[in-house]
Amino acid sequence: MGNDNSLVKEIREFNKQMDWDKFHTPENLAKSISIEAGELLECFQWNSEYNPAEVREEMADVYTYLLMMADVIGVDLNEIALEKLEKTKAKYPVDKFRGISTKYNKLETE
Amino acid sequence: MGNDNSLVKEIREFNKQMDWDKFHTPENLAKSISIEAGELLECFQWNSEYNPAEVREEMADVYTYLLMMADVIGVDLNEIALEKLEKTKAKYPVDKFRGISTKYNKLETE
Amino acid sequence: MGNDNSLVKEIREFNKQMDWDKFHTPENLAKSISIEAGELLECFQWNSEYNPAEVREEMADVYTYLLMMADVIGVDLNEIALEKLEKTKAKYPVDKFRGISTKYNKLETE
Amino acid sequence: MGNDNSLVKEIREFNKQMDWDKFHTPENLAKSISIEAGELLECFQWNSEYNPAEVREEMADVYTYLLMMADVIGVDLNEIALEKLEKTKAKYPVDKFRGISTKYNKLETE
Repeated sequence: MGNDNSLVKEIREFNKQMDWDKFHTPENLAKSISIEAGELLECFQWNSEYNPAEVREEMADVYTYLLMMADVIGVDLNEIALEKLEKTKAKYPVDKFRGISTKYNKLETE
Repeated sequence: MGNDNSLVKEIREFNKQMDWDKFHTPENLAKSISIEAGELLECFQWNSEYNPAEVREEMADVYTYLLMMADVIGVDLNEIALEKLEKTKAKYPVDKFRGISTKYNKLETE
Repeated sequence: MGNDNSLVKEIREFNKQMDWDKFHTPENLAKSISIEAGELLECFQWNSEYNPAEVREEMADVYTYLLMMADVIGVDLNEIALEKLEKTKAKYPVDKFRGISTKYNKLETE
Repeated sequence: MGNDNSLVKEIREFNKQMDWDKFHTPENLAKSISIEAGELLECFQWNSEYNPAEVREEMADVYTYLLMMADVIGVDLNEIALEKLEKTKAKYPVDKFRGISTKYNKLETE
């Protein structure tokens, strides 16, 4: 994925032009991400086959609201994803969790 | 946001090492995005105040699964978000929708 | 399912006793239903197998918030579900949609 | 809420007639509940005001899929909600949590 500073700027500019900024509180954006994630899930409601064009569009919506939320609360998505990856690596040592989808805490108690 | 090719590569490598690739079908990733979006929403369940550290972590989870899904089905998130922005601009002309959150189709029929 | 007037009353009483009513706006309950639906989905995140006890508990959470929302905005769940069933029957005539999961509007355009 | 055995029977019969039963695995119904919960949330996307008719319809959809899931996996919604209420009462003693929305575990560690 290339540099998308320009994408964030374009989205920001469009929202400003539309006077839509006022709707974009962190809470409303969290709702919006959930709503769009539901629409993405709808592409897979009854089976695992999917329409690529629909999936692309719903993924774009989730991503756009995520970029807007990151912009509003001032975080860098790539930075926080890297941080989280480091946490995940520490939590799930390869030798113990290879091939297992069960969550850490469940594995411990089972 | 800077270039995150390296982030995608790191995530991909970790999943391969863990043998978690087999779980990452488009359908399962769509479910995962929805689940994590729900956890992000939980940060705002009873009011608009939020714990920044929790919000960062949940946003990271949504973004990570979104990156994985983009990688699995072969789309570029920035590209599809830009495409969608162009569509949105065409659908909501500034002079008609400035300051209005109502959706296009609803505005038409009201 | 038996009569659950007593269940709604018990939930209502508990919330009053806890002074939790103030959190239960329709908006917050809609968020809560979405959050709990995400937790229910998590029981099926990586495959179709599930832990019955976990599924029961998450279904109970979705249902409880749904009952609370119905109570707050003054609707009867069974009544609105019956209304919706009649609409669905009208929208999807048996002879045209038997065995087809595709939605009405999609079938039309395909 | 009155007795809705007849509602469940009607839904079951309609699905059988449509040959839609085959789509109604617990996993697909969990996805469906999440999708419809997202549509319910959409009624509150940008603010707390809502269109009652839309909210009723989305609540009906969540409830219908919940009834179908309960029917498929063989649980009684009112029974599991009562069970969960008892658990919640035990977890949140009135004297300690009155007027507090913070979750049990968070209160403990803060």
